[in-house]
Amino acid sequence: MALEADLVIIGAGSGGYEAGLYAYRRGLKTVLVELSPETVGGNCLNKGCIPSKFMRYGAHLLERFSLMERWGIIPGEPSLSYESLKKHRDEVVVTIRENFKKFAGQIDLPILYGKGVVEDRNTVFVEGLGERIRTKFILLATGSKPSGAGDLVPDGKRVLDTDQVWDIEDFPKKVLIVGGGAVGVEFAYILRAYGSEVVLVELKRRILPVDDIPEDSARYLGRKLKKIGVDIRTKTSVERWESTPSGVKAYLSDGTEVEADFILLAVGRRPNTQGMGLEDVGVELDERGFVRVNEYSQTSVSNIYACGDITSPLMLAHKAMYEGKIAVNHMIGGNQWKRDERIIPKIIYSAFEVASVGLTEEEAEDDGYEVKVGVTSFVPNPKAMDDGENEGFVRIVSDEESGEILGCHIVGPHAGELIHQVIHMMRAGLDVEFASKSMYSHPSLSEAIGQSASEIFYGPISWVKK
Amino acid sequence: MALEADLVIIGAGSGGYEAGLYAYRRGLKTVLVELSPETVGGNCLNKGCIPSKFMRYGAHLLERFSLMERWGIIPGEPSLSYESLKKHRDEVVVTIRENFKKFAGQIDLPILYGKGVVEDRNTVFVEGLGERIRTKFILLATGSKPSGAGDLVPDGKRVLDTDQVWDIEDFPKKVLIVGGGAVGVEFAYILRAYGSEVVLVELKRRILPVDDIPEDSARYLGRKLKKIGVDIRTKTSVERWESTPSGVKAYLSDGTEVEADFILLAVGRRPNTQGMGLEDVGVELDERGFVRVNEYSQTSVSNIYACGDITSPLMLAHKAMYEGKIAVNHMIGGNQWKRDERIIPKIIYSAFEVASVGLTEEEAEDDGYEVKVGVTSFVPNPKAMDDGENEGFVRIVSDEESGEILGCHIVGPHAGELIHQVIHMMRAGLDVEFASKSMYSHPSLSEAIGQSASEIFYGPISWVKK
Repeated sequence: MALEADLVIIGAGSGGYEAGLYAYRRGLKTVLVELSPETVGGNCLNKGCIPSKFMRYGAHLLERFSLMERWGIIPGEPSLSYESLKKHRDEVVVTIRENFKKFAGQIDLPILYGKGVVEDRNTVFVEGLGERIRTKFILLATGSKPSGAGDLVPDGKRVLDTDQVWDIEDFPKKVLIVGGGAVGVEFAYILRAYGSEVVLVELKRRILPVDDIPEDSARYLGRKLKKIGVDIRTKTSVERWESTPSGVKAYLSDGTEVEADFILLAVGRRPNTQGMGLEDVGVELDERGFVRVNEYSQTSVSNIYACGDITSPLMLAHKAMYEGKIAVNHMIGGNQWKRDERIIPKIIYSAFEVASVGLTEEEAEDDGYEVKVGVTSFVPNPKAMDDGENEGFVRIVSDEESGEILGCHIVGPHAGELIHQVIHMMRAGLDVEFASKSMYSHPSLSEAIGQSASEIFYGPISWVKK
Repeated sequence: MALEADLVIIGAGSGGYEAGLYAYRRGLKTVLVELSPETVGGNCLNKGCIPSKFMRYGAHLLERFSLMERWGIIPGEPSLSYESLKKHRDEVVVTIRENFKKFAGQIDLPILYGKGVVEDRNTVFVEGLGERIRTKFILLATGSKPSGAGDLVPDGKRVLDTDQVWDIEDFPKKVLIVGGGAVGVEFAYILRAYGSEVVLVELKRRILPVDDIPEDSARYLGRKLKKIGVDIRTKTSVERWESTPSGVKAYLSDGTEVEADFILLAVGRRPNTQGMGLEDVGVELDERGFVRVNEYSQTSVSNIYACGDITSPLMLAHKAMYEGKIAVNHMIGGNQWKRDERIIPKIIYSAFEVASVGLTEEEAEDDGYEVKVGVTSFVPNPKAMDDGENEGFVRIVSDEESGEILGCHIVGPHAGELIHQVIHMMRAGLDVEFASKSMYSHPSLSEAIGQSASEIFYGPISWVKK
């Protein structure tokens, strides 16, 4: 006999488990289906943002060593242990994963292990387990997997993808990173800070080559990465490569050769939408293989919803979590809470934190706004100076006529936390006058947000508004 | 012949200089009057928040040493140099001060050096310089100075006040700090982290003994300070003290004796309102010596305004800056922007950052609200775990009926930046539903704000809201 549920969520990654907790909270009898006990938490927790941010913090600490004398601390040269880094990194991951499973158990939010297949619009079959669940609603939250690139086929030894890189046993002497997106620049920073030689190749004309991260942010980060010794080659690709006794030798399109311990492939990800019965039940995919969803994260089949990496190339854990909750809210009759892509931030944790939300200056102009921009540097910010992190800037993009905040782009210390102030303002429709006249503690990094808004509202300090 | 101005600001500390820049921006011909070129920037810059936050960052770095192995970094035992700490600390202070003076010069915002005395409601005389200025408006921004306490009279050697402590030449072997307010707990942490033995005495029953910082925040910090070895004695005072060849010997009310290199007196500050002609011109003071101001920071004399430490015991640089700008805005006819004390945060940078804005649970109950509180710990927060700073919590205080956010109290990593998210929400009148449904990146510390709001809006996760 089949199990009965209000909601079956296929995939217990960031989107699935956040949606599961939310559904539980809203009173839905919910079942999570996940491949195995080891994959609960999905890519972000197990092979993505959580372990990378852990290592990034270590890189940040290491970078501090050359500055410590400033605070009267004269440290010796530290020795490094990849083993210790990996052990503690994995401990954080496992702790979060086990906590979640334990908590799900306590509140009676069952997780069934196996591959979830949609048999019909009200039935999910769990392969492996052989269990069948009858349900009112289904939420697809199956995430994504790393893409390959031509003959750069990940083998876990010479060519590693971002699923495999976690298993290396020591810091590489030299690494060739292919792809200058978020993951590429994060690993470039981490490995360089821990002493590896790093070559980063990017096919396009700049790192972070996406429209929603402004040129200025990408170039500011690029200069810093170069300064710490990352060899960045833009407009460059790997033409061919071969194994060597000690690793790989790659022939680049700029005519040079790079020998390295391995190649780290960071060229993007593709959605997990195959082999789970979506076609049979009528869930529409777009031409790139993403599940089509509306503003409530509802698919073309009205009781089936989807969230996260399978809905668009904007593959961010918090997007998945947000969409998952909006989906659940809609299932139980809420239709006020809608997906608003404008307020989903992109945050990169590299040599700087690079945070973006909403429109860039260029995008705003293309959309026909009379754009007015306010920029404040962290260089003279007293708190940033105290902390020895006075690099970067806050840039607010606004509409001149209405004062509407269209976007915000922050590079520098704690950009990933600071940007939430502007996210909330954008969501609430607050304008630059509000941001200018709000309260900012002194000294704080946050002051730079108020100052950027004031640059727009009153004009730059160097001229006078009557 | 007298100089002519639209506005004379007496005092170029945080409040005065922020107001000066703002007045310049709004088109007022403005003159700043400040005691000397060395005091530009006032107490916060020269002897307060800026140098203390610098030293606090060093303390924070030192505390990281015992954890570094977690990130695969095995450091040696660092050696410490007070000389280097002081040199770089003072460099930051001087850089900010000189930058401001240079900038004021560039934009033609003159600073006259000497003591400013209000001769009549339209005339300020600059003693020392002998200059007289005729002006439409006056802004009083003269700040405060440290208080003494009974026979604990600061002499700069045995008993230091918070103006004098910056001049010490080395880390003390042992220090007795009198006063467990913000400055006391900040110095206790800094000196302890750099290796001093620290005894902290506080007359009241807990550290941070003010109504607008909740008991929980104060006790959480107190436990951490004790853990790192600060000897905290509450309900204790210094009954008498004497000089010894190597420092001081103090007899405490708990019957014990403490020998230390010196006593650091951190028992509060009093407003600088004497000897500047306020009584003669009719500017009213309250019974404690503070200048009475209305919601526009206007005194009892309509063209004379006041901001900062002289207007109330809430002596915070950003309060001064905020009041100064509101005053200037009112001078030129703006009456929408009013002082709202609710949204002025209090932030302490000690072993944790302790940030508070708005009402505590107790205050809200006393005000007759049906209080509902949401608390989220940083302990399981993934970003905090990655950074090895997973201690503390976010507490939101709300009105059950309306969902209004009445206050927020954060202890933990970057509390002083995070709290701005709630400040903006409170200022805009956004409620816990807004905070719950807004966007928070993952992983981030900010998520704890959304989670606290969700605890209120949906009820704790352990029970179900239909």
